[in-house]
Amino acid sequence: AHIVTLPGDGVGPEVTAAAVAVLKTVAARYEHEFTFDEQLIGGAAIDATGAPLPAESLAACQSADAVLLGAVGGPKWSDPNSPVRPEQGLLALRAALGVYANLRPLQVHPALADLSPLKNEKLENVDVLFVRELTGGAYFGAKTRTADTATDECKYTVAEVERVVRRAFELARGRRHHVTSVDKANVLETSRLWRSTVQRVATDYPDVKVEHQLVDSMAMLLLTQPNRYDVVVTENLFGDILTDEAAALAGSLGLLPSASLGEGKAGLYEPIHGSAPDIAGHGVANPVGAILSAAMLLRHSLGLEAEAVAVETAVDQVLRHGPHTRDIGGSAGTAAVCDAVLAAID
Amino acid sequence: AHIVTLPGDGVGPEVTAAAVAVLKTVAARYEHEFTFDEQLIGGAAIDATGAPLPAESLAACQSADAVLLGAVGGPKWSDPNSPVRPEQGLLALRAALGVYANLRPLQVHPALADLSPLKNEKLENVDVLFVRELTGGAYFGAKTRTADTATDECKYTVAEVERVVRRAFELARGRRHHVTSVDKANVLETSRLWRSTVQRVATDYPDVKVEHQLVDSMAMLLLTQPNRYDVVVTENLFGDILTDEAAALAGSLGLLPSASLGEGKAGLYEPIHGSAPDIAGHGVANPVGAILSAAMLLRHSLGLEAEAVAVETAVDQVLRHGPHTRDIGGSAGTAAVCDAVLAAID
Ligand SMILES: CC(C)[C@H](C(=O)O)[C@@H](O)C(=O)O
Ligand SMILES: CC(C)[C@H](C(=O)O)[C@@H](O)C(=O)O
Repeated sequence: AHIVTLPGDGVGPEVTAAAVAVLKTVAARYEHEFTFDEQLIGGAAIDATGAPLPAESLAACQSADAVLLGAVGGPKWSDPNSPVRPEQGLLALRAALGVYANLRPLQVHPALADLSPLKNEKLENVDVLFVRELTGGAYFGAKTRTADTATDECKYTVAEVERVVRRAFELARGRRHHVTSVDKANVLETSRLWRSTVQRVATDYPDVKVEHQLVDSMAMLLLTQPNRYDVVVTENLFGDILTDEAAALAGSLGLLPSASLGEGKAGLYEPIHGSAPDIAGHGVANPVGAILSAAMLLRHSLGLEAEAVAVETAVDQVLRHGPHTRDIGGSAGTAAVCDAVLAAID
Repeated sequence: AHIVTLPGDGVGPEVTAAAVAVLKTVAARYEHEFTFDEQLIGGAAIDATGAPLPAESLAACQSADAVLLGAVGGPKWSDPNSPVRPEQGLLALRAALGVYANLRPLQVHPALADLSPLKNEKLENVDVLFVRELTGGAYFGAKTRTADTATDECKYTVAEVERVVRRAFELARGRRHHVTSVDKANVLETSRLWRSTVQRVATDYPDVKVEHQLVDSMAMLLLTQPNRYDVVVTENLFGDILTDEAAALAGSLGLLPSASLGEGKAGLYEPIHGSAPDIAGHGVANPVGAILSAAMLLRHSLGLEAEAVAVETAVDQVLRHGPHTRDIGGSAGTAAVCDAVLAAID
């Protein structure tokens, strides 16, 4: 299998290196051949080439079996009025790869419950899979700007909604058969199209229970009843907000992975944390989010379920017994945590 | 002073009655003359007249010193494809009154910390005033719909942003001199206009510290560091989501008030909870959100600060010593809690 890595900015290179080390160990242990090709994206790409997603990077990603990304962005490139910004590279990549379904699983490791802002009893049995639409909505709609006025258009077609909603229902069949669709149908036209599409698709999945929540209520329910949810599907911007909110429950953003999938098997994998410029270069970033993203890569793009589970089990051991990075109350560095995961892979 | 009441749907009439009783007690105790005029809105108005905001209701509100609203909406009127919906009445009212600044204060009463999903130590010194832009953005933008496609436009002018941001800075001067502006400037054009307007306005308030957060980060920071924030200002839809998320911290939605203000002194006051159809008509709804909204009415529209504080102090006593409604762990009804507040007003 051929894997393109996009380390990007800030702590991206450090955590990507850890994830690559894990994939290499899996390849050796299970006798697979993985080839790696490192490419530029984000601020690093702007500095080197002027563009946040150089043509060479994009071409490499398009012919890969999977893409593993670190993080993009940082204060150096964050002037909102700058014509070129690192995030544009990430958005262009998501669009070009057609990865419309962003899977963000949330579980709270019992060993880390004390670190969560939520009361420990609220965290029991929390196991949510967010499916965020990733290539539509206000992220990709028409924008206008004059000195006086700005607009963003949020646009969805039935086909765009249907494919991501079907993916959510399919995923729910492998889990607890429950889909919660989040919208703002009492205000937005796109949400009314979203909701009626979910209602129609749901008739093809009579074995899956479907529920609709307004985004404002859902922002509250994720805190008051987080263990009520199984698969949560929503549009791009609501998904951005709700998944970051939910990520706080895990105790550290550094722990959580994501997978972005399209029609084929190829996918884009990234930890949900950002570039964390404040700690970049110090070797202290938590590699777990990136390593669990590599596990998702094994599962979804390479079809290597046993290998994915082996990585997840190894991470579980390390979260249980240490070593831990600073964000989760330890003092170990990125490399020490990575080494412990490698040692625990059997 | 002339006050229009819009009890609306679900528990709206029950909690509005409690708030009116409080205002009448204040009038008697402090020798003011308040006149009340009850009008239709929401589902109740649709049932009676076919329209969610009848012309008579709107005219009454436009000539009032203040408007006190209960709640709108309910399953009976919630079909997203229905041409007439209760929420339209509320949105039309906000627009017609020009109440562009929605103030939603969040404090966590120490006696109720155990009810909050957050760990008790996270709740210490939480005192946030959200200022949500209320008459712009995707709520009021152009919408299109065909069988295949839907769009919502989010639009902001500099003037719309500037007036609500100035209000936030002014309010911060009466508090801890700290404004956090929330946007999604790395993706949205309206957010870039928002952010540059905040940056410009901030130069007029050198005594106020200003900070920018992306909405996804803010959804997380509200949980991990809620006591870091003083005044939080944001656009309409982000404000809708973040204020409901924040409301969960208080332990019950039933506790929280809001005030919507425009250029003059007139304002629209409503508890942030909805119509709660599941408990409507049983006399068990928590009247505290509505009563505290009446306190905000006294303060912001009538300029009666001492009277507002008297109501808030009375509520504080009742939250401390009971009686409590079910949502906060008690068994008292709406009327018993209201009576206790009336008795505590001195
Ligand atoms: C970096 C940014 C453009 C991105 C997004 O908003 O999608 C990030 O927040 C994410 O969630 O992956
Ligand atoms: C009822 C609904 C239209 C309204 C809104 O979204 O503004 C409500 O959620 C609120 O926050 O007041």
